[in-house]
Amino acid sequence: MASHIYPPHRFLYNQQVSAALAEDLEHGDITTDAIVPHDASGSAVIVAKEAAVIAGTFVAQEAFMQMDPDIRFKEIREEGSEVSSGDAVMGLYGKLAVILQAERVALNFLQRLCGIATLTRDFVKELSGIPCRLVDTRKTTPGIRLLQKYAVRVGGGHNHRYGLSDGLLIKDNHITACGSIKESITRARARAPHTLLLEIEVTGIKELKEAIDAGADAVLLDNMDPATLKDAVSLARRLKPRIILEASGGIRLENVREIAETGVDIVSVGLLTHSARASDLSLKILK
Amino acid sequence: MASHIYPPHRFLYNQQVSAALAEDLEHGDITTDAIVPHDASGSAVIVAKEAAVIAGTFVAQEAFMQMDPDIRFKEIREEGSEVSSGDAVMGLYGKLAVILQAERVALNFLQRLCGIATLTRDFVKELSGIPCRLVDTRKTTPGIRLLQKYAVRVGGGHNHRYGLSDGLLIKDNHITACGSIKESITRARARAPHTLLLEIEVTGIKELKEAIDAGADAVLLDNMDPATLKDAVSLARRLKPRIILEASGGIRLENVREIAETGVDIVSVGLLTHSARASDLSLKILK
Amino acid sequence: MASHIYPPHRFLYNQQVSAALAEDLEHGDITTDAIVPHDASGSAVIVAKEAAVIAGTFVAQEAFMQMDPDIRFKEIREEGSEVSSGDAVMGLYGKLAVILQAERVALNFLQRLCGIATLTRDFVKELSGIPCRLVDTRKTTPGIRLLQKYAVRVGGGHNHRYGLSDGLLIKDNHITACGSIKESITRARARAPHTLLLEIEVTGIKELKEAIDAGADAVLLDNMDPATLKDAVSLARRLKPRIILEASGGIRLENVREIAETGVDIVSVGLLTHSARASDLSLKILK
Amino acid sequence: MASHIYPPHRFLYNQQVSAALAEDLEHGDITTDAIVPHDASGSAVIVAKEAAVIAGTFVAQEAFMQMDPDIRFKEIREEGSEVSSGDAVMGLYGKLAVILQAERVALNFLQRLCGIATLTRDFVKELSGIPCRLVDTRKTTPGIRLLQKYAVRVGGGHNHRYGLSDGLLIKDNHITACGSIKESITRARARAPHTLLLEIEVTGIKELKEAIDAGADAVLLDNMDPATLKDAVSLARRLKPRIILEASGGIRLENVREIAETGVDIVSVGLLTHSARASDLSLKILK
Amino acid sequence: MASHIYPPHRFLYNQQVSAALAEDLEHGDITTDAIVPHDASGSAVIVAKEAAVIAGTFVAQEAFMQMDPDIRFKEIREEGSEVSSGDAVMGLYGKLAVILQAERVALNFLQRLCGIATLTRDFVKELSGIPCRLVDTRKTTPGIRLLQKYAVRVGGGHNHRYGLSDGLLIKDNHITACGSIKESITRARARAPHTLLLEIEVTGIKELKEAIDAGADAVLLDNMDPATLKDAVSLARRLKPRIILEASGGIRLENVREIAETGVDIVSVGLLTHSARASDLSLKILK
Amino acid sequence: MASHIYPPHRFLYNQQVSAALAEDLEHGDITTDAIVPHDASGSAVIVAKEAAVIAGTFVAQEAFMQMDPDIRFKEIREEGSEVSSGDAVMGLYGKLAVILQAERVALNFLQRLCGIATLTRDFVKELSGIPCRLVDTRKTTPGIRLLQKYAVRVGGGHNHRYGLSDGLLIKDNHITACGSIKESITRARARAPHTLLLEIEVTGIKELKEAIDAGADAVLLDNMDPATLKDAVSLARRLKPRIILEASGGIRLENVREIAETGVDIVSVGLLTHSARASDLSLKILK
Repeated sequence: MASHIYPPHRFLYNQQVSAALAEDLEHGDITTDAIVPHDASGSAVIVAKEAAVIAGTFVAQEAFMQMDPDIRFKEIREEGSEVSSGDAVMGLYGKLAVILQAERVALNFLQRLCGIATLTRDFVKELSGIPCRLVDTRKTTPGIRLLQKYAVRVGGGHNHRYGLSDGLLIKDNHITACGSIKESITRARARAPHTLLLEIEVTGIKELKEAIDAGADAVLLDNMDPATLKDAVSLARRLKPRIILEASGGIRLENVREIAETGVDIVSVGLLTHSARASDLSLKILK
Repeated sequence: MASHIYPPHRFLYNQQVSAALAEDLEHGDITTDAIVPHDASGSAVIVAKEAAVIAGTFVAQEAFMQMDPDIRFKEIREEGSEVSSGDAVMGLYGKLAVILQAERVALNFLQRLCGIATLTRDFVKELSGIPCRLVDTRKTTPGIRLLQKYAVRVGGGHNHRYGLSDGLLIKDNHITACGSIKESITRARARAPHTLLLEIEVTGIKELKEAIDAGADAVLLDNMDPATLKDAVSLARRLKPRIILEASGGIRLENVREIAETGVDIVSVGLLTHSARASDLSLKILK
Repeated sequence: MASHIYPPHRFLYNQQVSAALAEDLEHGDITTDAIVPHDASGSAVIVAKEAAVIAGTFVAQEAFMQMDPDIRFKEIREEGSEVSSGDAVMGLYGKLAVILQAERVALNFLQRLCGIATLTRDFVKELSGIPCRLVDTRKTTPGIRLLQKYAVRVGGGHNHRYGLSDGLLIKDNHITACGSIKESITRARARAPHTLLLEIEVTGIKELKEAIDAGADAVLLDNMDPATLKDAVSLARRLKPRIILEASGGIRLENVREIAETGVDIVSVGLLTHSARASDLSLKILK
Repeated sequence: MASHIYPPHRFLYNQQVSAALAEDLEHGDITTDAIVPHDASGSAVIVAKEAAVIAGTFVAQEAFMQMDPDIRFKEIREEGSEVSSGDAVMGLYGKLAVILQAERVALNFLQRLCGIATLTRDFVKELSGIPCRLVDTRKTTPGIRLLQKYAVRVGGGHNHRYGLSDGLLIKDNHITACGSIKESITRARARAPHTLLLEIEVTGIKELKEAIDAGADAVLLDNMDPATLKDAVSLARRLKPRIILEASGGIRLENVREIAETGVDIVSVGLLTHSARASDLSLKILK
Repeated sequence: MASHIYPPHRFLYNQQVSAALAEDLEHGDITTDAIVPHDASGSAVIVAKEAAVIAGTFVAQEAFMQMDPDIRFKEIREEGSEVSSGDAVMGLYGKLAVILQAERVALNFLQRLCGIATLTRDFVKELSGIPCRLVDTRKTTPGIRLLQKYAVRVGGGHNHRYGLSDGLLIKDNHITACGSIKESITRARARAPHTLLLEIEVTGIKELKEAIDAGADAVLLDNMDPATLKDAVSLARRLKPRIILEASGGIRLENVREIAETGVDIVSVGLLTHSARASDLSLKILK
Repeated sequence: MASHIYPPHRFLYNQQVSAALAEDLEHGDITTDAIVPHDASGSAVIVAKEAAVIAGTFVAQEAFMQMDPDIRFKEIREEGSEVSSGDAVMGLYGKLAVILQAERVALNFLQRLCGIATLTRDFVKELSGIPCRLVDTRKTTPGIRLLQKYAVRVGGGHNHRYGLSDGLLIKDNHITACGSIKESITRARARAPHTLLLEIEVTGIKELKEAIDAGADAVLLDNMDPATLKDAVSLARRLKPRIILEASGGIRLENVREIAETGVDIVSVGLLTHSARASDLSLKILK
């Protein structure tokens, strides 16, 4: 992983971890309390049961540490590293009751973030050698967008805007509500903070031209086939050389390279966050 | 959907919706505020772009209503009904700005819950005619377990225990930590509330026998192949006719029927909640 | 106290302590701030002013530590131990201002939990030699159920279900709403998670028989006199030897032994949590 | 009840009710969901099973209304009125599932507040004809002080200070920490807001004189027997006619009149809030 | 006020109002509860005691409505309108106790927001006829940034970025930490979302040139005198005609026009939010 | 600063700091994350750019420490000390990224609290030699009243009541709502806790007499000119020597001494908290 991919600040995700622990533990762990002496300590290991890109070990740690700050970790795989089936991802030492009680929450976070990083890495590999950014969307799981978007970065992708506050993206529904591409762009330019670039979604060549004429900084080319994308890129570069072009809609592992080869600067892929499979990980108490 | 599948109480999920709106809206919707007059009203529709089982329309409604209690809904598909690509799922009428601002959050919940219900329904169809319950696991997405487990019920599945507080499930790690199956069961029986049935995970025939001898009410047969499962079922029924038998581990659409046919009472499937694809849904503002 | 009675996890009660401190301190301690230099340290002791069973010392500590993590404790009486009037329960050393400011909150928790443990112990002693569990109810003080139910365990009692989520208990009002005992049990068995045992409340012998015929795992015998209880136990054991029988309603210290001697497995007593007197404890600053 | 006793603002107690519902309902009511159709409506009544002074009906209503704003109430007993065993306290009409799910929380609040009001009323009756205020203390149950202090007023008592922020009360521990009565009073007078009267606790005649000399506005006479109290009152009235005198410590129903007859202005009684029995109330679904 | 200036969504500020009410009311209004019958209704009016631009009437309304949803309002001055001393800003009708209890919180919000809008309007008038945006900064009062930035828009200003997430602004401290202007810009361009324009702070002509050469989209010219600003504008326009130029530092009502006349596109003024005087408003109960 | 002015307990302001960090950081610091390596450490200093009285350094520290508990501080100016332009207020050492990310929040608190302390000190100096307390009002910024009232004490002022719960202050609107001064005082005396002194606002000599006759402990003389104030003081002292007299309304630095010289005990000044300018402070990263 690039050295500048940083986990979010703890105070931006620790409440999600607390909520997850409360969700799983409710009023306590009936089974462990009945069976496992609370003063018994031991070791455990989180093991990958399939190949994966590691993301979110710090969230898993947070889950254990919120239960007991004295849990110790070792040999934690670096964020962004690739593991194979059977590889240890993280070692733990501490009270067995605590390990058992935070296990599921830790894994629930970790396996989802690894799943996203793994899928993103697959996409990035498809784009190898092409100067095209892979970006995510706002189609994230409610409550854990920050972590999911981090996992995309770990996998080698970039983030599109985080939410509705940090980007000007005029979509088809906005244009319908406002009346026209030109009027939409004019209003946005006049009223929005100068700190945001202005991007607009178009579905055809005619709208693309209209958007560029009205002064768009970036254009999202929605659901175009590769041939149309090529025409769009060609036209746009001619009219405004430094415009940013993003392709979106129906992009899958199978077609992402073909789409990127049309010359767009960015491909955005919703399924990175809405449909990545969870990586298969498990925790074992060691004798 | 069976008439007794009820959505959770609003006060048990409305904070998740609030959090999701805050996550997406942060300090406001820059684009809509700049472009769309706040007093403009209109209609919109949520459309399915692939076949799906509907679950979670009330959560989507909650998202719109938290933004504006005056939004009106019509022709909402019944929870549990099946839609095809192109079908309308829900009509909306109200302020366009509000519809645009809650759109993504509403869809992010709805498409995930439909995805789970749809996958669950596929499993349930595989089990057609076999007296075997399909149940979920605790491998849920942090923060929205309640909604995910509801979606499993909508799809026709049942819920296993919700979390660590409402079930006695002695897993392999507990046995390792405690020392033996017999001691685990003895302690659990002596100390846990009498209101909970006692279930224990075993990985082989020998442990199964040990568990039954020690008085288990239910046994989770972990990662056994169909042949072993058949032997296990046969032995268990002989030793304790009314014992509950659950198969778990590696169960997929492709093998669920074969596993159920071994005679187990329950199959539990983690991927219902950890790896279901989101259903493809979109919202369109109508002219 | 039995060695397996564990305090709840800190994260499950620390917010109640925070709320209690905020409730008492609001915007600060006007008296102490005016009178006591904040850098003055000293010792204090919490003393029992009547005989009591100790429960909740960790909650009292939490109150002091939330104010100042540097407070030190010594000679804390073990949870479940019995003290006499005049006995020290806990020694403290640290900033006097902090001790004075957390004193009332610490005692308000401690004296209530000791009160419950003490009363529970009295009941348990009455049951000496009889194989009958004493259990609590959901008649707890809003907000501190977890701690109150812990105090019951410290006193030697067991917990009935925690709340509405972790037990199937069909009460008279459910039967009224549903229509019949048989239908209630049938529905519950078909729809509820398999992890919960099915208990039903009956008020007479006829209903008891109906409940057993319909397949109840446990029966709550409500408000029966000892003679009726004996008949009920006799009938139930004959029909279903391993059924669990619980007596409830109007059970007091004076009659609990007589009721237990009828052969029921469980007696449930609401007044353990709704009407226990607070134990008399006080804190003294030492010269 | 006097016409000027007002319930606290809803926003000052509704979160306690929400927390109590979440505590009892966790992830839902398994029993009711399985058995009772959610669209079935009906009537219910809360009945007193012993004599009581009614307090907190609005909190019980809040519990039901948070579950379903459409629940209807009728014939609610007025706050402060006295009921006998068998009297209806409140009628309800609405969804049976909702009534069953909020029942326990509503009663848990109501029976505790009635218990306090009832005990307070008993004390107030003992003081009949004597110009002496009965007041509560800060020995309240963590989290519901506001409601408990309200119940004291309903019963006919007055409130002492609410917490550490709204009263200057120099107690024995403060004096120990500060060094002397005189210095304590001097500092408090110089530093505290002018809006608060200055009260100090004394345990003997000598300290009483010292306190008055130093300028106390009120004196708490701690744990004095009636004879000593009489001497204290006589001395204090002579030295400072308008001083406020409060007796505290060990005051019970049996001795409160004798203590009040010593001439003190105020008697404060901790057991009003820390050891009142819950009133016996129950809810019945009507056919 | 321009028709497109919208108040923030209620759910983005209602918790600040709740917190303010809790801060002021703590456990209730002792004075009003003692004196004013809760069923007495009447009228009140909020009056301006000096000239002001109105902003935040909806926040004041929120305060009253959180106490009692039945309060009625009339003749509310439009946001952005100008009032003189003696003008009524808002009429109220409802329970007098409620009006008295929310009065201070309502005014505390309203008078601050009016103060900011009023000061902003003064600045905007100074800029009359000059194509230069007045923008705010992040020097806002903790907790109410959203409302303060709204008040700036009401006064006729624009908003700079909201916080650290929605703008790329490389300040002097960043450059110090990173090493150079060129490297800072290169990293930011490579790593940040494409949706954000890149702005950098410079303090001299040399740095300005370096920033433009490295590809900055916008430059913040910090603390330059008008002569230097003119040189900077001239150079920048020559090198990159469409660059955005912002002047900042020490801008006051007295010099804002001179600075704007240098040709910068934007002037940013911290004192709009950190040092605006509160407008003088008061509430009167009408006989 | 007097040695007995204590900062509020951390748990009474740390949530305001958390909220401010969340407000500024939302989903992270885009600029710093892109540019500044997270493992780079260094030093920084907060410098005064104008003369100021220091207040709130612990809040600034809290902001940095919530981001990273390993930040180190040195040479922190004592609360209440006076600094000149150019003076260092606080040194910091730690991760540069953390320092940059908490900088604005830390300064936003610090510069406002210093502003209040500075203005208060100016008033206190005006009162030099006169036995008259300067007090604040409830005209504070929503959410940070506790800190603002602390800053007033640091500047040498005293606090009036904190909110509506800890003082009996009958204002003109109360009298209007109640009917008369006499009735207001009678009700308040009969119903409010004995721990609060009774203060009432009057606007003329006649009302003053009425208030004293009815038994007021303190009187707020509203908006009287110095001559009228003198008459009021003279009358009041004659009728009730130990009455507390407070002047309020329109008090500014220019007239505070003249008003205090009329002999009132207290002057209350709203602009201390509603219109103090923020002190000019900045943070510099050191090479």
